[in-house]
Amino acid sequence: MADNKKLVSEITSMDEDFTQWYTDVCIKADLVSYSNIKGCMVIKPAGYAIWELIQKHLDARFKATGVQNAYLPMFIPESLLQKEKDHVEGFAPEVAWVTHGGMEPLTERYCVRPTSETLFCDYYKGEIHSYKDLPQVLNQWCSVVRWEKETRPFLRSREFLWQEGHTAHATFEEAEERTQQMLNVYADFLENDMAIPVIKGQKTDKEKFAGAEATYTVEALMHDGRALQSATSHNFGDGFAKAFGIQYAGKDNQLHYVNQTSWGLTTRTIGAMIMVHGDNSGLVVPPKIAPIQVVVIPIQQKKEGVLDAAYDIAKSLSDYRVKTDDTDRTPGFKFAEQEMRGIPIRVEIGPKDLEAGKCVLVRRDTREKIECDISEVAAKVGALLDQIQNDMLARAKKHLEDHTFVAHNKEEFAENFKETKGFVKAMWCGDRECEDKIKEEFNVTSRCMPFEQENISDVCPICGKPAKKMVYWGRAY
Amino acid sequence: MADNKKLVSEITSMDEDFTQWYTDVCIKADLVSYSNIKGCMVIKPAGYAIWELIQKHLDARFKATGVQNAYLPMFIPESLLQKEKDHVEGFAPEVAWVTHGGMEPLTERYCVRPTSETLFCDYYKGEIHSYKDLPQVLNQWCSVVRWEKETRPFLRSREFLWQEGHTAHATFEEAEERTQQMLNVYADFLENDMAIPVIKGQKTDKEKFAGAEATYTVEALMHDGRALQSATSHNFGDGFAKAFGIQYAGKDNQLHYVNQTSWGLTTRTIGAMIMVHGDNSGLVVPPKIAPIQVVVIPIQQKKEGVLDAAYDIAKSLSDYRVKTDDTDRTPGFKFAEQEMRGIPIRVEIGPKDLEAGKCVLVRRDTREKIECDISEVAAKVGALLDQIQNDMLARAKKHLEDHTFVAHNKEEFAENFKETKGFVKAMWCGDRECEDKIKEEFNVTSRCMPFEQENISDVCPICGKPAKKMVYWGRAY
Repeated sequence: MADNKKLVSEITSMDEDFTQWYTDVCIKADLVSYSNIKGCMVIKPAGYAIWELIQKHLDARFKATGVQNAYLPMFIPESLLQKEKDHVEGFAPEVAWVTHGGMEPLTERYCVRPTSETLFCDYYKGEIHSYKDLPQVLNQWCSVVRWEKETRPFLRSREFLWQEGHTAHATFEEAEERTQQMLNVYADFLENDMAIPVIKGQKTDKEKFAGAEATYTVEALMHDGRALQSATSHNFGDGFAKAFGIQYAGKDNQLHYVNQTSWGLTTRTIGAMIMVHGDNSGLVVPPKIAPIQVVVIPIQQKKEGVLDAAYDIAKSLSDYRVKTDDTDRTPGFKFAEQEMRGIPIRVEIGPKDLEAGKCVLVRRDTREKIECDISEVAAKVGALLDQIQNDMLARAKKHLEDHTFVAHNKEEFAENFKETKGFVKAMWCGDRECEDKIKEEFNVTSRCMPFEQENISDVCPICGKPAKKMVYWGRAY
Repeated sequence: MADNKKLVSEITSMDEDFTQWYTDVCIKADLVSYSNIKGCMVIKPAGYAIWELIQKHLDARFKATGVQNAYLPMFIPESLLQKEKDHVEGFAPEVAWVTHGGMEPLTERYCVRPTSETLFCDYYKGEIHSYKDLPQVLNQWCSVVRWEKETRPFLRSREFLWQEGHTAHATFEEAEERTQQMLNVYADFLENDMAIPVIKGQKTDKEKFAGAEATYTVEALMHDGRALQSATSHNFGDGFAKAFGIQYAGKDNQLHYVNQTSWGLTTRTIGAMIMVHGDNSGLVVPPKIAPIQVVVIPIQQKKEGVLDAAYDIAKSLSDYRVKTDDTDRTPGFKFAEQEMRGIPIRVEIGPKDLEAGKCVLVRRDTREKIECDISEVAAKVGALLDQIQNDMLARAKKHLEDHTFVAHNKEEFAENFKETKGFVKAMWCGDRECEDKIKEEFNVTSRCMPFEQENISDVCPICGKPAKKMVYWGRAY
């Protein structure tokens, strides 16, 4: 265990300094490397493999709802970005500008897409003529650029990977239905594949997306009590369609503007996974998105039969993503590495186990050790992976519940937000002024007006006027 | 058939104007749309779905050889691009330059990656310390930008999608082995999945990649007799390592430079597919990369039982990528669309067929009609898809052989390159001067020195000096 302690001691304790713990885990678990391009990161194989599994699960869910993938250019001419007023105000301050192609200055500068609403509008304008061309339900997997000042791996970087869905519909109702459908896809994916419970709700006008009529969000709670917006879905109504002139001839032979939506999820989901499930030994990866689900670690591997038994066990686990660690490092080091990388199960097999026809399964999440007949390892591992996935979600749910508080008045806001303990639920009159006051006074943001409303009290805790909505408040990443 | 003729008449005949035929097919088969961003295209769902299958097949082949995926930033600071002299000379004239981030001018301008050798070098310098850190075998799927003047869908555009593999090895021999291994992966993929036969060989010094010691290529022959470089694999030796200072401590405790490779395949492969297999009715997509392999088309679909029978047939084909076209368009239109989109098989089912318990399978590649018991359709379709895949490769191979000529002297060069009929094989002394002369005089480029050498004659047809190598020449896209 000496090796183990050594590797583990290389990461800061999360109780001591959560921010440093996060960075340490990102680096020590080999997920990312800082690049020499300021504000951009290298996503290393161990990190990218998680993203590939996120893509695979999410893309299958998208396609089951009729989404088709496409690819649009990465550049947006300045005049195109400026067509929708709110949108350009939101994004122009943080884009990267291309001014030269080869040796020649461009006649008009291009930005690297920070998001592609304007490009999809430009495309849809050419594609949509009749109601027969609707709906259009497209998505692209790509990278986008936002020139952030402060950056952190996965959470905020100048370039990040994401998917962005963009749809066009005949009616506002159909657009609204798609907006909510995709929010539910995200919630379902986050809960069932990433074991991250979320609060589903609507953003206030202050916090909604630049150019949207309504923005819906799924908000997760990190281990340190901070909130993380994990995916958003926007209904644009016909605002963009009017700015870009996207019309279709209806069955009534009249021209109508289309109604549009967009929705996105980014690599910051990996950051959420780290901060919801990780512990002081490193990552804990949910089985469904774990690039390696089981690592078989031979003990005293030079003893006759041990290595072969390890290979045989791995072979019997070929339905899972399995690896045998047959390197010449010590078992203690291998255990520590499995823990750091968050591999859900390790199988230990040594000479004594072998003699007894047994091996030991060790859960990453609880460290529970389970003795198991070698002949039963495949069935046991399958059941255990399901169990771990379920238990991880249950623990995260409990953490979310235990760290959601109520404020009936300013004193309770102050009390609950002295430290960052979690979400605070409070009533709200609906006025921007009260929202601004809470934000300034307690250094928090409104996360959402949850779909599941409760009646905490009848009045707004700030102004005392009648309350319209319950709001989740939090300190956010 | 009136509808059919109408849709088909919308594309130019390839015999009349091959270039226009190509563009027409790209547009009418819904693969791409021209965007308002000059030189960039929109890859539409029907085109992107082919790219997704290319990615899936190729990525599986990569991973089987130990490749891991990663993601590096899209920006390269100018000083980093300039570190390797040959490389910067090759790429600097055609990159897009970012000069501003948000409202601020950058202290150093960044280019959008035209290729990522310099970024991987910068990354490897930080990752590689000891022989234990080798080999590094990474790949990324991304888009790159080269500021081309003349652009054509898939073949040449300012932004395109590709994969780029970048590896680092202890020895030159190991790098050489990886370079050739990946070339073989490309050749195998192109032949067996895309039904495109290729000539494998080495580029001359004149044509090799900027900064490479050796560039290997797979060259395909299009239907119009032009060559298309379909993928390349480069051995850099230790050139980049020396420019970037990438060293490792060997088992001998001495510092050594690493040896590096890179290899890439792009969306232009879709262009190759169009120009190798397409005909005057549109696309012909090889079954293995066809997003839809079978379309079931009901005839007189309002007659009782027809539509249900069509759905039942589609259900029995669920092992394949199958679709039922139950829209209210005429069968003739649906046939024409299936042909335009190159769907390998259509299944026709009408009231008379249904009564007899039969249906008709129609091959896209040969238009052969095959009567088939409805109960046997699944088995028949499976065998037929294999047959189509094999026949497409065999026909493309025959075209390649029939359009490969030999030149013993300048007269035969002139004769064979009066028109663009295909490849010309000729001996070469190895001097750059003779290569330049052939290029200028006959408006062709050396495609490669094939691995399978033949001894056509003993002397160079230009200078009469002893011949060293046989070279493939061609007019290229």
